[in-house]
Amino acid sequence: MHSELWVEEKFEDFLGLRFKVEKVLFSGKSEFQTVDIIETKGHGKMLLNDGLVMVTERDEFAYHDMISHVPLFVHPNPKKVLIIGGGDGGTAREVIRHTSVDKCTMVEIDAMVVDACKKHIPQTARALSDTKVDLIIGDGVKFVKETTEKFDIIIVDSTDPIGPAQPLFGEEFYQDVYRCLTDDGIVVSQGESSWYASDIQKSLLSVLNSVFPQCFLYSFSNLTYPGGLWSFTFASKKYHPLHDFNEQAVHNSQLSFDYYNANIHQSAFALPNFVLRNLKGLIANR
Amino acid sequence: MHSELWVEEKFEDFLGLRFKVEKVLFSGKSEFQTVDIIETKGHGKMLLNDGLVMVTERDEFAYHDMISHVPLFVHPNPKKVLIIGGGDGGTAREVIRHTSVDKCTMVEIDAMVVDACKKHIPQTARALSDTKVDLIIGDGVKFVKETTEKFDIIIVDSTDPIGPAQPLFGEEFYQDVYRCLTDDGIVVSQGESSWYASDIQKSLLSVLNSVFPQCFLYSFSNLTYPGGLWSFTFASKKYHPLHDFNEQAVHNSQLSFDYYNANIHQSAFALPNFVLRNLKGLIANR
Repeated sequence: MHSELWVEEKFEDFLGLRFKVEKVLFSGKSEFQTVDIIETKGHGKMLLNDGLVMVTERDEFAYHDMISHVPLFVHPNPKKVLIIGGGDGGTAREVIRHTSVDKCTMVEIDAMVVDACKKHIPQTARALSDTKVDLIIGDGVKFVKETTEKFDIIIVDSTDPIGPAQPLFGEEFYQDVYRCLTDDGIVVSQGESSWYASDIQKSLLSVLNSVFPQCFLYSFSNLTYPGGLWSFTFASKKYHPLHDFNEQAVHNSQLSFDYYNANIHQSAFALPNFVLRNLKGLIANR
Repeated sequence: MHSELWVEEKFEDFLGLRFKVEKVLFSGKSEFQTVDIIETKGHGKMLLNDGLVMVTERDEFAYHDMISHVPLFVHPNPKKVLIIGGGDGGTAREVIRHTSVDKCTMVEIDAMVVDACKKHIPQTARALSDTKVDLIIGDGVKFVKETTEKFDIIIVDSTDPIGPAQPLFGEEFYQDVYRCLTDDGIVVSQGESSWYASDIQKSLLSVLNSVFPQCFLYSFSNLTYPGGLWSFTFASKKYHPLHDFNEQAVHNSQLSFDYYNANIHQSAFALPNFVLRNLKGLIANR
């Protein structure tokens, strides 16, 4: 009998998600966080930051489809997109599939994440070498404070509000995001678990509400995050994610998706009552 | 430092879900399976059959809302409902909230599950003492083969297709279910994970298709099942789960739910592309 290697993501002190390890491909400690890339038995290659699962090859399409195609099929002509975070490259990969997009600026704080993903997870990171992608290694909070550029869509593809991602959940950051958006701009942000992080969702939506006239939450299934049900926030200056959704554009795009489709877009904004109650007054979802 | 007790559900050989244990309330081995009831730290009381999480107090409302209210708000006048399995009582609890229901017959194979839940999980099991509930300890497969009763709705609230639940995924069983349904009857069944059990979903839908004219799959979020995204199948002689859904009846019922609402009902039938592809030709979902 030989020993077995497993990697475990702990959630608080009462839950653990364990994944069987075939091989550890990379382990490093950057200025910001620990970075691990694991070849798992059941989920392909997996990126973990500070021990939290970020991306697996098996299910990353769900997260990346839903963080990108929802705003990109609501905005009628998204040309300039900014991604804050998203170092694995999966979000950029989906953004640049939209032919309207001229430029996708990406500001990732941690070069180690980018380098490790480029080497070990080309499935997501290959997009980072595309000519449409302008990759900046730097602090997204500082970037939106200082830039004079305007973006049609900003995607906050962050980790949980701990460590380097904490300011990405604050009001000052979203005031800068508002300023960096065009007059009909949209911001979509990683919105945590409705089951396990109802307090963070409430706090993030409160922040967004203090800055944007229209805020929404939408859900999708993330196989490898605790609880499975995961969320993105949708805040905009003008567009409604359902009323301004152009279903025909999805068909016309001739893009094929493994998760996203027009029905999924619309149904993602239907929320269970326990979520609606928690976010009462903070979201414009029905 | 003291030792810590955790209970782990293994999925195949590559995934584990671990829950922190406060106290083991019951452990038994029946003729059919092992039965454990655990007081967990993060999820309240938890029932496990053969080491698989069946129900936790924290999230059981999602499963029980979705297995019961979806068919009960499609059928215009459900009077007689049959539950196969469902020993924890949560499904019966939701079924009998509908005032149209005169009688809810429940056929659970394992008395140990019923007795242990009655003692330790009254949150679900209290319904089993209701006068509307006719609880039969027996084999559901045999029951539907032999009974002359007809039901408006049959709910197959089973575990995975191993051990005592295996015949509940077969064609012979569903031919009997068909016979036991009224001319406008509906059967809803526990439909497994679209992520991890795509083969079982395909097989179950093939079986249903060979018996029923209309088959569908719908999804919901189950916090404590592997992967989080879980499914029920909906098969009917007549009614379409969306076209015949009476949204007004939900409001008129004045029932309050923690998960279910009219939007959730409709959106649950929107499936990601990877699920649609797997079940192509077998479901009438768009």
